[in-house]
Amino acid sequence: MSKILAVGTVAFDEIITPFGKTGKILGGSASYISLAAQKLIDDIGIVSVVGSDFPENYLQKFISRGIDISGIEKLENEKTFYWKGRYHNDLNRRDTLVTEVNALAHFNPVVPDDYRDAEFLMLGNLHPALQKAVINQMKKRPKLVALDTMNFWMDTAWDELMQVLKLVDILIINDEEARQLSKDYSLVRAAKTIQQKGPKYLIIKKGEHGALLFHDKDIFFAPALPLEDVFDPTGAGDTFAGGFIGRLAKLEDIGFEAMKSAVICGSNLASFTVEEFGTQRLENLNKTEIKERLQEFIHLTQFEIELV
Amino acid sequence: MSKILAVGTVAFDEIITPFGKTGKILGGSASYISLAAQKLIDDIGIVSVVGSDFPENYLQKFISRGIDISGIEKLENEKTFYWKGRYHNDLNRRDTLVTEVNALAHFNPVVPDDYRDAEFLMLGNLHPALQKAVINQMKKRPKLVALDTMNFWMDTAWDELMQVLKLVDILIINDEEARQLSKDYSLVRAAKTIQQKGPKYLIIKKGEHGALLFHDKDIFFAPALPLEDVFDPTGAGDTFAGGFIGRLAKLEDIGFEAMKSAVICGSNLASFTVEEFGTQRLENLNKTEIKERLQEFIHLTQFEIELV
Repeated sequence: MSKILAVGTVAFDEIITPFGKTGKILGGSASYISLAAQKLIDDIGIVSVVGSDFPENYLQKFISRGIDISGIEKLENEKTFYWKGRYHNDLNRRDTLVTEVNALAHFNPVVPDDYRDAEFLMLGNLHPALQKAVINQMKKRPKLVALDTMNFWMDTAWDELMQVLKLVDILIINDEEARQLSKDYSLVRAAKTIQQKGPKYLIIKKGEHGALLFHDKDIFFAPALPLEDVFDPTGAGDTFAGGFIGRLAKLEDIGFEAMKSAVICGSNLASFTVEEFGTQRLENLNKTEIKERLQEFIHLTQFEIELV
Repeated sequence: MSKILAVGTVAFDEIITPFGKTGKILGGSASYISLAAQKLIDDIGIVSVVGSDFPENYLQKFISRGIDISGIEKLENEKTFYWKGRYHNDLNRRDTLVTEVNALAHFNPVVPDDYRDAEFLMLGNLHPALQKAVINQMKKRPKLVALDTMNFWMDTAWDELMQVLKLVDILIINDEEARQLSKDYSLVRAAKTIQQKGPKYLIIKKGEHGALLFHDKDIFFAPALPLEDVFDPTGAGDTFAGGFIGRLAKLEDIGFEAMKSAVICGSNLASFTVEEFGTQRLENLNKTEIKERLQEFIHLTQFEIELV
């Protein structure tokens, strides 16, 4: 079976929603990506950085699930990246209250030897130069390189972002980011523009409105599962990415049909993440629950119609 | 084959979009509903009202397609209902510039004898008392009564709306209307509340974000087709309703599986309507185009995944 290398933040989040608030809890893109992918495949390694304040029991959440953390560097005399945010009532918008970059400012990703031959590389949202540095450390070109980014890097590191985009197979971003990256409001036209920048595949996440997968002239759409209540959207996008790449690594197939089912797996896992604060729901999620909800996705989307 | 009775406005629209503007063109809910349903079934009658200014060549659009207009009353000394609106750049929002109710203020719907036994009744957006008056004229309970309404009637005719809702099988409204009707932001909870008001089935249209079909615990979702450009969204919702009921009338089946394919047919036809101003695209649409786009919907949404 294939290996996944997940690169991104392992961090503290503090979250306020209309339903409640947390203290400093486990957050970060690499946390969600790896915990989600672990539902589908065994061999996952993380490359990230934390400070000396990062609690052992948070690292144990990865270790106990067989996730390799030898690539998580612990910087002495530094604190862990910390984000605090408050969601609006509709949970579609949020305000950042605090961002402390801390240890992340000194992040110099080093891929452990055991993962330099990983077939699947998921580059979580980070400075594009760091994302590129990771690609360069791989012994051979992975079967699939997926990348997430955000508006901030488009504003502050455009050239580096363009460079790394040329090296990746699939870009996974949200609708706002796709619009900014392409300078086009229409997502279909945005997808064409973005595919010309390097990635042959593109996923545009639309939050509660689902996700679109683009490749050449092919488009696939997966809805988000309609939920009575979204409790905390934090990490939904990274969970999606983890479920997506986990599915492809399990199938060892990167064709469009495989990617369709991977988008569904990503949406499926993301639908759990939003049900509780932080990584909580993902941590206690079992295979029966995943399978049952997959059945719900099938009921939700599959239909029969004659073409005559 | 079944008969459809479509009740609603036959009117003048004047439309301004970022891409251009029209003069007074054919509009109105019954126009879109009947022109869409006519792609799927032959026997459709309209009940509506126009003024003496309504041009013969607009009526010919219906007549030449075999749509029965004996239920369109022409009021002498009255002008036809007229709406003028301007869409914002994103085409998701619009401002009403002019509404002249005109002949519609005197509308007293009379169902022609030939259509009092229609098996499928589509009540377009009108005062709920008029919608009820139509139901009461039917010789026997239609196989399916579908109803559209809007926020305006929730604000001004709540009690009459509640009365007519008890008489219908399916309500077809948009997300904002569902939220106002249920007083709940969550569409899943809104659907439960609305089903308790009468309609056993509910469709919530989300514009470019697709449509949800609810029945008991069953949910089906159909995306809107991702388009490079939406040219004019006017009439998309009514086209959806016409395609939906047209499909059910063709199948003579009102089970949930049939409704799923009907939602797809509605989305399919609506994806054409938005490509040109007014009813233009719907008028010149042929069966091959519809079939090809149906294939696109299948590619867009259907996937294979093992459940083990």
